[in-house]
Amino acid sequence: MLILVANLGSTSFKYKLLDVSGDLHAADIRPDDRVLARGAVERIGDASESRCEVTIGDYHNVYEMPVPDHGIAVQSCLDQLTDAQHGCLKDASEVSAIGFKAVHGGRKSGTFLVDDDVLEAMAEMNAAAPAHNPPYIAAMKLLRERFPDLPLVAAFETEFHDSIPEARRVYATPPNWREEYQVQKWGFHGSSHRFIAERTAELLGRDDLRVISCHLGGSSSLTAIQNGKSVMTTMGMTPQTGLPQNNRVGDFDPFALPLLIERSGKSLEVLLGELASEGGLKGLSDRSGDLRDIEAAAAEGDAKSALALDVYVEEIRRHMGGMIVAMGGVDVIAFTGGIGENSDVVRRAICANLQSLGIVLDESRNEGHRTEGPLHVESSQTQIWVVPTNEEWIVAKRTKQAIGN
Amino acid sequence: MLILVANLGSTSFKYKLLDVSGDLHAADIRPDDRVLARGAVERIGDASESRCEVTIGDYHNVYEMPVPDHGIAVQSCLDQLTDAQHGCLKDASEVSAIGFKAVHGGRKSGTFLVDDDVLEAMAEMNAAAPAHNPPYIAAMKLLRERFPDLPLVAAFETEFHDSIPEARRVYATPPNWREEYQVQKWGFHGSSHRFIAERTAELLGRDDLRVISCHLGGSSSLTAIQNGKSVMTTMGMTPQTGLPQNNRVGDFDPFALPLLIERSGKSLEVLLGELASEGGLKGLSDRSGDLRDIEAAAAEGDAKSALALDVYVEEIRRHMGGMIVAMGGVDVIAFTGGIGENSDVVRRAICANLQSLGIVLDESRNEGHRTEGPLHVESSQTQIWVVPTNEEWIVAKRTKQAIGN
Repeated sequence: MLILVANLGSTSFKYKLLDVSGDLHAADIRPDDRVLARGAVERIGDASESRCEVTIGDYHNVYEMPVPDHGIAVQSCLDQLTDAQHGCLKDASEVSAIGFKAVHGGRKSGTFLVDDDVLEAMAEMNAAAPAHNPPYIAAMKLLRERFPDLPLVAAFETEFHDSIPEARRVYATPPNWREEYQVQKWGFHGSSHRFIAERTAELLGRDDLRVISCHLGGSSSLTAIQNGKSVMTTMGMTPQTGLPQNNRVGDFDPFALPLLIERSGKSLEVLLGELASEGGLKGLSDRSGDLRDIEAAAAEGDAKSALALDVYVEEIRRHMGGMIVAMGGVDVIAFTGGIGENSDVVRRAICANLQSLGIVLDESRNEGHRTEGPLHVESSQTQIWVVPTNEEWIVAKRTKQAIGN
Repeated sequence: MLILVANLGSTSFKYKLLDVSGDLHAADIRPDDRVLARGAVERIGDASESRCEVTIGDYHNVYEMPVPDHGIAVQSCLDQLTDAQHGCLKDASEVSAIGFKAVHGGRKSGTFLVDDDVLEAMAEMNAAAPAHNPPYIAAMKLLRERFPDLPLVAAFETEFHDSIPEARRVYATPPNWREEYQVQKWGFHGSSHRFIAERTAELLGRDDLRVISCHLGGSSSLTAIQNGKSVMTTMGMTPQTGLPQNNRVGDFDPFALPLLIERSGKSLEVLLGELASEGGLKGLSDRSGDLRDIEAAAAEGDAKSALALDVYVEEIRRHMGGMIVAMGGVDVIAFTGGIGENSDVVRRAICANLQSLGIVLDESRNEGHRTEGPLHVESSQTQIWVVPTNEEWIVAKRTKQAIGN
């Protein structure tokens, strides 16, 4: 069974074609071997010629063509996949479904065939995920029309967190806000954290583990995983809270807003917009939202970049501590995502000075490490790993399950 | 030297008269012996007869009189203190200063003689502390006029937190918001946490300690104290963030606000007002903001009250964990405030399941314990104490220092 996993932006379409045939719980499954093709279409709708890219086995093609909408983008993808010379499919009907890493469905947390109710539930959350939900809804509606025989499946990023105990899910709001407005700690990056849960259980050969999954990248979140289930996470009602992100503020005091409105003369909308696009590592460093730039500038003595790095690490440590207490300890700390997999500087800073908690990084193992593997000293009670994530694999498996139901 | 320590509300004036003569670092100082008088005036300005109360030694008096403003309240206090029969002073001029436990001075964090600049700095923070700053400013202005020879001193609740490292003080906002709008994690309850810092050092006979001070009461905050200095705290730009409070939400996702505005039809001002008066334990329990009511209802099976209790404990544990990681461990957990000193139920829940971190409560010692004393088992690496706080003592000492400078 072949699933096309789609990652949408307002002007982009990235995809992987994955083979999810057979028993996906088998011990010898290697998700990387199941990728038949991958590709991307950028600048959809806003340029006469969009840049397109596809990789099928050893074949790599970059081409330009007019792509006015996401329907044309998917059509171009299918054309490449079924190309007589380089394609991997005889016919587009071999694709069983498109699985979307959808963000916020509010009351529809789970993995669902896209229907009117799913689209309506997403629309209800537009104001909580304004950068993500509207383009997904628009593209899904378009694709339903253009490809009526191709099942579309929304695998919401909140689903993995449905297991979080109620006392860690609710805000202390006035009564009934949760029921009326779905205001609760939903959590995101669910596909990535679920992959880390599954993979750490495989790596350690047991699933009765307390894991802290550190998904650190363009956007970052931590999740505490106990016996394979999410029991706490850093993002909240929206993907804006929690850790500072590349250009988003993370945790912030909403009661500062009246003072900011009064003193700046700006509206709530403008202020929240600035906090969501000019804050985070970008705002702190006053330079860049890319951690690589910040690490380089800090190493050359730039004080604001050093502060940005310190704040990022301090906030990760603060949330990590909350998870250690919540679980009464931690067996595995797993680093993933662009920063988690690649920045030995950030990993070292996160693990510093935690010997008394039984967490000891092997600095020589950590240095330059970028692939799956352990980073702790033998005597460390807590294992520390790099585990490259694979969100598409999780979305593909969940999509298979959803269309099977 | 006698200091009148004042705690103001918009319609209330509570005071203690404290003797701060001599060497206040002497080992045999007992702050409780230094209280010469205490009293309260309630319903100032909003009733023809205000309820007044005063205790001087064994003399206790409750009386009613018209108290149209805070000036009359202070005058009535001084009249009682200098009463020929029951008073403890010959003349009001024996009071060297009034020390105020002032809340938010923004850029004027510290202890200062009240002057125009201090009042101006407080006014700049009105929008961040709307329940606290305006009544303090109004009362201070009035008292300056009425008692021109009596020094007024503002001991801001933020001062103790000035030692927090920069990386734990800033929000990841757009550049220059901190400079332009004083948006940073200020922290509050400074007098209480400072008292706990001093007292735990005395109790353990050393000041190179890592302490988590848990001020749990009508409003609650935790502070991490290292070598006697605040290095992290739960409240932020305003006293509204951090732990859930009796009727205030605590940490909340500001990016939920656009959805709430859209769906509820309420304004930002109304929503924040509801979060600050109908949330917290009151909102969660849908019953009461008083933890004693909630404990009782939970014990009788009320599900919402049980949830309120769980959320409160979970949030305390989450923040405590962040502090343990920040300090690389914890030597003392100190419980104070109305809940911290009196609720063995909450203390037991906070300390549950932390054996692997070396934190072990002695449940029999804990049960019913309400006075200063240890609660941990002998083998616990971390000591656990009840330490009744004494904010007035700290304000009085700081006031003495300020008028001495």
